[in-house]
Amino acid sequence: MKDRIIKHSIALFEKKGFSETSIQDIVDTLGVTKGTFYYYFTSKEQLLTQIHLQYIDYILEQQRRIIEQPDKSWKEKLSDVIQMLIQQIRDRGGSARIFFRELLHITGDDLSDMTGKRDQFRFNFQFIIEQGMASGEFRDDLPADMMTFSVLGACNWCYTWFNPDGPMSDAEVASIYTEMFLNGMKK
Amino acid sequence: MKDRIIKHSIALFEKKGFSETSIQDIVDTLGVTKGTFYYYFTSKEQLLTQIHLQYIDYILEQQRRIIEQPDKSWKEKLSDVIQMLIQQIRDRGGSARIFFRELLHITGDDLSDMTGKRDQFRFNFQFIIEQGMASGEFRDDLPADMMTFSVLGACNWCYTWFNPDGPMSDAEVASIYTEMFLNGMKK
Repeated sequence: MKDRIIKHSIALFEKKGFSETSIQDIVDTLGVTKGTFYYYFTSKEQLLTQIHLQYIDYILEQQRRIIEQPDKSWKEKLSDVIQMLIQQIRDRGGSARIFFRELLHITGDDLSDMTGKRDQFRFNFQFIIEQGMASGEFRDDLPADMMTFSVLGACNWCYTWFNPDGPMSDAEVASIYTEMFLNGMKK
Repeated sequence: MKDRIIKHSIALFEKKGFSETSIQDIVDTLGVTKGTFYYYFTSKEQLLTQIHLQYIDYILEQQRRIIEQPDKSWKEKLSDVIQMLIQQIRDRGGSARIFFRELLHITGDDLSDMTGKRDQFRFNFQFIIEQGMASGEFRDDLPADMMTFSVLGACNWCYTWFNPDGPMSDAEVASIYTEMFLNGMKK
């Protein structure tokens, strides 16, 4: 039931916006009572936090696995992370969109937890670029943090336009992006 | 007064979110009555539309001027548009943030007007890339629409992290981005 609540809430938040969606709207969609909602979540904000944490924890774990692959170059690891990110937008587009749009509704400790994890993802991304600079795979005349922002930004932006039913698959988009960025980062 | 309402509303929408900001909040900040608000705007949604239109009309006009410069290469024009976009995020960060975040609150004809203009900006951007491909300044083995999405996405993403008081100026960020992208797009 918890997962069903999360799934339906993502759809509602995405369509109507977080503020305009009431707990009543959520339980009505599921045909359950508010009691059921409150059994799993203390508030709508806590539900939103759970949605965000699920998303960020998942991509952090995937990123960690990619970085730890022993036989791959830093170029390949960067390419794998780009592909994973765009695939996530394909599979969890709703989560991604509300993640970026509704972040201002998360406050206090939840917010520090969330921004800490977002920063972690970015730092890991930058780590790949720095290692690739050190190994001579990437040019080292541009600041690694700015290269990180630009590549990560371009990938994240896909949530605003990528359509899984469109003419281009997530893998195709990722491969064009990778080709362009790796070329841009070439020594 | 109209401009003051717009300016203060942007700050409020950015901080609290559009839905959580009431017309009462806006007029309280300005020390005026609701009558004043309704003299200039028919609703909060119409005010949001005005904010979005001001932003998009301004960057469209700047883009048009850049494209029409007679003595510049397509590379230089692309670089100028990137610089203009990031400078706008410096100067009108609040507008940019609420533009991307609150778009779902615009509906009907206003929405078609807005998305039409956003698409126009993207098509003009793609036009620069296509012209640069035709002139031999850019590689032509990657689809121009995807190159557009990636560069434009990276620039737009700056609104999530760029801090005008941070260590890097908007001109520096733009020059690093341009260098990386132009290199990525090199034949």
